[in-house]
Amino acid sequence: MTYKGICKEFLESCGLSIGDRVEIIKKNVKYVGMIISHTHGSDDKHLVLKLDNGYNIGVDVTDAQAELLEKGEKPKIELPPLDMELDPDKMDISIISTGGTVASIIDYKTSAVHPAFSADDLLRANPELMEQANIQGKAILNILSENMTPKYWVKAAHSIAQEINQGADGVVLTHGTDTMHYTSAALSFILNTPVPVILTGAQRSSDRPSSDGFLNLMNSVTAAKSDIAEILVCMHASMNDTYTHLHLGTKVRKMHTSRRDTFRSINTEPLARVLDGKLEVMDESFNYNQRHEGDVEVNDSLEEKVAYIKCYPGIGSEIIDYYIDCGYKGIVIEGTGLGHCPEELLPKLHRAREEEIPVVMSSQCLYGRVNMNVYSTGRKLSETGVIPASDMLPETAYVKLMWVLGQTQNLDEVNAMIQNNLKGEISPISSQKYFLI
Amino acid sequence: MTYKGICKEFLESCGLSIGDRVEIIKKNVKYVGMIISHTHGSDDKHLVLKLDNGYNIGVDVTDAQAELLEKGEKPKIELPPLDMELDPDKMDISIISTGGTVASIIDYKTSAVHPAFSADDLLRANPELMEQANIQGKAILNILSENMTPKYWVKAAHSIAQEINQGADGVVLTHGTDTMHYTSAALSFILNTPVPVILTGAQRSSDRPSSDGFLNLMNSVTAAKSDIAEILVCMHASMNDTYTHLHLGTKVRKMHTSRRDTFRSINTEPLARVLDGKLEVMDESFNYNQRHEGDVEVNDSLEEKVAYIKCYPGIGSEIIDYYIDCGYKGIVIEGTGLGHCPEELLPKLHRAREEEIPVVMSSQCLYGRVNMNVYSTGRKLSETGVIPASDMLPETAYVKLMWVLGQTQNLDEVNAMIQNNLKGEISPISSQKYFLI
Repeated sequence: MTYKGICKEFLESCGLSIGDRVEIIKKNVKYVGMIISHTHGSDDKHLVLKLDNGYNIGVDVTDAQAELLEKGEKPKIELPPLDMELDPDKMDISIISTGGTVASIIDYKTSAVHPAFSADDLLRANPELMEQANIQGKAILNILSENMTPKYWVKAAHSIAQEINQGADGVVLTHGTDTMHYTSAALSFILNTPVPVILTGAQRSSDRPSSDGFLNLMNSVTAAKSDIAEILVCMHASMNDTYTHLHLGTKVRKMHTSRRDTFRSINTEPLARVLDGKLEVMDESFNYNQRHEGDVEVNDSLEEKVAYIKCYPGIGSEIIDYYIDCGYKGIVIEGTGLGHCPEELLPKLHRAREEEIPVVMSSQCLYGRVNMNVYSTGRKLSETGVIPASDMLPETAYVKLMWVLGQTQNLDEVNAMIQNNLKGEISPISSQKYFLI
Repeated sequence: MTYKGICKEFLESCGLSIGDRVEIIKKNVKYVGMIISHTHGSDDKHLVLKLDNGYNIGVDVTDAQAELLEKGEKPKIELPPLDMELDPDKMDISIISTGGTVASIIDYKTSAVHPAFSADDLLRANPELMEQANIQGKAILNILSENMTPKYWVKAAHSIAQEINQGADGVVLTHGTDTMHYTSAALSFILNTPVPVILTGAQRSSDRPSSDGFLNLMNSVTAAKSDIAEILVCMHASMNDTYTHLHLGTKVRKMHTSRRDTFRSINTEPLARVLDGKLEVMDESFNYNQRHEGDVEVNDSLEEKVAYIKCYPGIGSEIIDYYIDCGYKGIVIEGTGLGHCPEELLPKLHRAREEEIPVVMSSQCLYGRVNMNVYSTGRKLSETGVIPASDMLPETAYVKLMWVLGQTQNLDEVNAMIQNNLKGEISPISSQKYFLI
């Protein structure tokens, strides 16, 4: 977007425009970079500069001085026309966009890293995708994934279902990486899909040399054409641009703030990988659903009043009262070790039990399995009716409890459903080898 | 402990005693194992059985039937006398015990896995320790580490200081593993020590074939005799009983519920390792404090009213209000990705700012560094005065904020202290190689 107000005046008074390379001096600090268009929602006094390291910063132009270093060319966006002619020999894949870094893949001269592009734009920027399949693009949201909510999970589920029921042979959902694993877990429980549903994103926007978005998208389309009718996350498997892993939607977690291979399967190995356009199943022990005929099933009832509490030394036990008093219907605890919390919390968990509020115990270790039979604390928790999350990720346990409480409020049924493996979220056998891989 | 009440009557009526191998049938379920002494704090109707797999369970004897399978020998505990004669050629090392699995190392026939033994008992059970050094044992707590609190951190710090100021050449603190890394971080900030302070524990009690306690203790004494005057965690480095790592107390985390090599340095490598009784420094880049003369310094002022909040899709923003209304003085957020939270929380964080309550942003990715300059959400958080935790672990950020608020309430000073590296908690340089090692 073009600038308004103070920035507009500043640019005009200095004879500068978007695309120019400039030096801005403000309070003895010097910033060198290219002026790019401003971020949606920002105020009118911050000029956005793309620094040479690829990062964007906002500089308050009040009392700043600017010097033109190099006049920029007017930014050109060359978009190939979208050829929507269907090739009967190709599969039909839908790409649904929700925002996130992967969607900032185009028009790098003028965009800050913020969600701004739709699935159609993704296709225009990556015409190679259309060689792989007949691709339909659809934008349903345009948000950074830290702003995802359970309501948006349901919206995404219905959009995916609509595409499949209208004949899509597979769906790719582009998504910000911050909470992609929460969404993939939610979609795993909400949807029973006859075709692949692949979540993907990027850790780097395409305006940085190390962008990962293209390979992730290409390989997601390959996965969407495969026979694995599961909810999967397709992201880089290494620091190189060589191949991607396909992680089961309930067993994956973002494990690094910035690496491209940030997504990791926890307590299991990735289900498959895509290398050179070919999909190879890695975890032969997992009986994934095969592609089949039929409509998608959507069970979209979620109980949103579920609390997720991390335990730590010094936690005040009143937090349990707070959530009960606020009408929360379920609690997931990210406990310590094998699934423990301070004994001080026990009376509060008894109260939850009396008020028929299920409490699920997971572990902040992330790796390994909850076992509340080893130590006295765990046994006391079991006696209080606390439900072990087994080797489920805490984040998955949270999403699952929301979904389970959407299906039943009967405490025994909740207990059984949490402890039963529904969508690959609980591994039947523990293997020590799946640690830090 | 011997049984009382219902269990005592049950044992007497069946002619059974501790040490006997029995079959107990209760509601058609059969339990086979050895009767062991009951757990401290348990009620009088649960009999504790050690099953053949090494685990202990409590069986409610109401309406149960028991059959003697094999009469147990009366448990014998042969404790070598503690030879307290000081050898002037050996260093003086103090072992302070706080409970935890490592302290259940002795008397395996009669103990359930619960904290029951003191440092002196550890020495009696591991006389080899006394070949290494003149060892003084001291028990200050007898708890499972999920029940550690900030007050106990301070108690431990003062006990350590007392030992050092009375001439100990190094201190080993035995501790349950669940929250060992919170305690090691707390001691790192509270203490400036002229000699090594080593935290250690065990993932398996000695009554299981795979116990790790002995090697951890032996190598901790080796580390306590070394020249590294830092707070370190000494735990198994592999699944084999071969060597231990020494992790900096502020950079370590329990990453697996049950593996012996569960403790991992995050965003750095272990400072050193101990193999075959020899200590070898691994991270040459870290300028650790060298052993030196002088007293230990104790800065034990902690602000206990610090909240630790994990962010997730669907989090209610009122949780921030709750903590502010309850008089909390600081908030640590375990955000997503590079350090984000839902925008819905922003007005609440503005309120925290207005009320001069510092908010620190860490990442639930655990690996990598918080960077709030890349995305619009991060920039908005920065504008709200949210303080980035850099590459600090969220748990360390929580402990550090408690300690910093114990030193100053001035918001600018808090901001500066959080962002400055005080005890190795912030790595100056990010290296991609320290991921999942």
